[in-house]
Amino acid sequence: MAMDTKSPMSEPGLPRLLSQRSGVPAFRVMDVMEEAARREAAGDSVIHMEVGQPGTPAPRAALEAVAQALTTQRLGYTTALGLPALRERIARHYQEWYGAYVDPNQVVVTAGSSAGFVLSFLALFDVGAKVVLPSPGYPCYRHILTALGQVPYVARTDADSRWMPTAAQLDAAAADGAEGLLIASPANPTGTMLDAARLAEIAQACRRNRMWLISDEIYHGLTYEAPAETALSVAPEAIVINSFSKYFSMTGWRIGWLIVPPQLVRPIERLAQNLYISPPGVSQVAALAAFEARDELEANKQVYRANRDLLLNELPKAGFRKIVPADGAFYLYVDVSDLTSDSAAFCRQMLADTGIAATSGLDFDEERGHQFMRFSYAGTTAEMAEAAKRLRAWSNLKG
Amino acid sequence: MAMDTKSPMSEPGLPRLLSQRSGVPAFRVMDVMEEAARREAAGDSVIHMEVGQPGTPAPRAALEAVAQALTTQRLGYTTALGLPALRERIARHYQEWYGAYVDPNQVVVTAGSSAGFVLSFLALFDVGAKVVLPSPGYPCYRHILTALGQVPYVARTDADSRWMPTAAQLDAAAADGAEGLLIASPANPTGTMLDAARLAEIAQACRRNRMWLISDEIYHGLTYEAPAETALSVAPEAIVINSFSKYFSMTGWRIGWLIVPPQLVRPIERLAQNLYISPPGVSQVAALAAFEARDELEANKQVYRANRDLLLNELPKAGFRKIVPADGAFYLYVDVSDLTSDSAAFCRQMLADTGIAATSGLDFDEERGHQFMRFSYAGTTAEMAEAAKRLRAWSNLKG
Repeated sequence: MAMDTKSPMSEPGLPRLLSQRSGVPAFRVMDVMEEAARREAAGDSVIHMEVGQPGTPAPRAALEAVAQALTTQRLGYTTALGLPALRERIARHYQEWYGAYVDPNQVVVTAGSSAGFVLSFLALFDVGAKVVLPSPGYPCYRHILTALGQVPYVARTDADSRWMPTAAQLDAAAADGAEGLLIASPANPTGTMLDAARLAEIAQACRRNRMWLISDEIYHGLTYEAPAETALSVAPEAIVINSFSKYFSMTGWRIGWLIVPPQLVRPIERLAQNLYISPPGVSQVAALAAFEARDELEANKQVYRANRDLLLNELPKAGFRKIVPADGAFYLYVDVSDLTSDSAAFCRQMLADTGIAATSGLDFDEERGHQFMRFSYAGTTAEMAEAAKRLRAWSNLKG
Repeated sequence: MAMDTKSPMSEPGLPRLLSQRSGVPAFRVMDVMEEAARREAAGDSVIHMEVGQPGTPAPRAALEAVAQALTTQRLGYTTALGLPALRERIARHYQEWYGAYVDPNQVVVTAGSSAGFVLSFLALFDVGAKVVLPSPGYPCYRHILTALGQVPYVARTDADSRWMPTAAQLDAAAADGAEGLLIASPANPTGTMLDAARLAEIAQACRRNRMWLISDEIYHGLTYEAPAETALSVAPEAIVINSFSKYFSMTGWRIGWLIVPPQLVRPIERLAQNLYISPPGVSQVAALAAFEARDELEANKQVYRANRDLLLNELPKAGFRKIVPADGAFYLYVDVSDLTSDSAAFCRQMLADTGIAATSGLDFDEERGHQFMRFSYAGTTAEMAEAAKRLRAWSNLKG
């Protein structure tokens, strides 16, 4: 039984065209990561500032729990909503962090926040629905909506509104038929935040316009000025998306959660049963234990704080002067319009010349991204210092 | 900062209706699993024949590889297509099992076959596209298509065609606008298979009708009469979906793969970057090592074979006489029309009376499922013997 084709990657005739939605753009940062990995494999010394990924592994307590589970548990399918103990622990987290009551039954454990987006978009919006996305913003919001047949409705933000949407924008979008809003505070790529008053204003605007409010709270815990507010404090009808990837340092484990209004639990459970069956069992074991690693996680955060201070001090000396004022997450979003008119080419050149991988703004802002770039500072402080040194030398070289 | 609501599960006013597609039916087997878990927690002795899940954990080699990786690797995001070493190993698997050449670049590692369905449906079909699904069949095919705005086109099968679609059905579906076909051999829930000649016939029918051929090969390796053919042997343009869940005994790890024509790799990579970022890192480590566990996995299979022999012998004595002739997988699909006209109620009663959890045919066949049920025999032989004993006693009791 041999295949018709022997030569590698010969192209069989396809029966018909691919779908239109197969044309969704790449998440470019993953492409940069691939290119960085290729250079590393070829012997280059690469400093990774491209992906929003802690340099640290999962916390020790999580790894120990997994090591034990390997010999004591079968680690098969869990129920689609996740392990009851983990759902309870996540609910308790809202009491501890925000003083907010969440019923464990409102918690849906997901395969990363990625699954949280897919599940909430499917549960809330039909084909053709318009959903407001602030720009710049996390590109996968836009691309997932598009893949699911929904329509991203871009709300352009800028320094005047601290890179967050305004109530007036939401009123206008609703008049144009928008059915929902997705916000993130702290935001990616800017790291800016909504204070309590503005969050309440936005929740109110959603309510009066009968728009769903989806709050991506994945960078909660990683704030350097004031703690972040959960949307639940002003909008119990909000859908909250979170993850163990960032604060809990567990990107590769693909585990996160949703908090949803009671009426949404069963519809989302049905979708999750069909689209995911269950979140990864081993990652749920790790996640449950990660809550007990507070000291280690806070120590990680102090590293990010030091990295942020270092870069805010050093980047301007290397010519990166227009940095968006970030209160949280582990990103600096930089206006590089005085250095280039093509940030993608600039980032490629920077990687080739200095071994520093960073991302152009094009992922986050289709309109203005060519004049921005994003540095992730989730690595070690020694790496950040080395990056600063290389960038200064590069800047001097270029005159 | 307290939430507006204090009482558990009080229902906030929602801004608008949920989406229509939030109404996709449950994957009922997951609901049965929940009910079985509740009974178990209450002290009942439950025999699990409801879920398609091996009673065994991941193979030892996989667990050992994970234990080691916990201390030596960061286990962060991988590239969206998966670890290169795993993609290469999967490609080699096609040489070893089928004598077929697959280029590692055609391999896409996915978060279980679930992600494989979502990615291939999105890459191939736009909103409104009709896709042929044989009935009875795995219900998530139907529900995922519906959630994505596509249209399941049911091809009713029966004993005459060994529960598989015919070329004539495909011609008719294509005339009606169908753009693709999804087949599984061995099939779930029937366990029946397509021989090489019929597989070639179906591939040909797809080709002449310009239909995509998607082949779910998740039960390959679990065959008791003759080995299964991969669709790639007759159709290099086919999309093959597979998983480490069944033969490799790794359900809860949520890890699987696709083999796709070269032209589809980049579109699927872009979709995967956006919808999943990457498959779980720890599960990829486990999967790579699982290939070295052939002896253990073949021993598992011998248990399934013994279970199958036992049940084919014992079930008729308990009144389950009309069993569909299954060549593979670990299911027996039984026509229970002489026992009940409502298989869902029958299964509930059976669980309550005997502690045996099984699934009604309604998951798999909306039209005729009320007179069928599915037993999964992936547990231990002792469990199967105990199940047979309880069923015989139950049958005697009912007279």
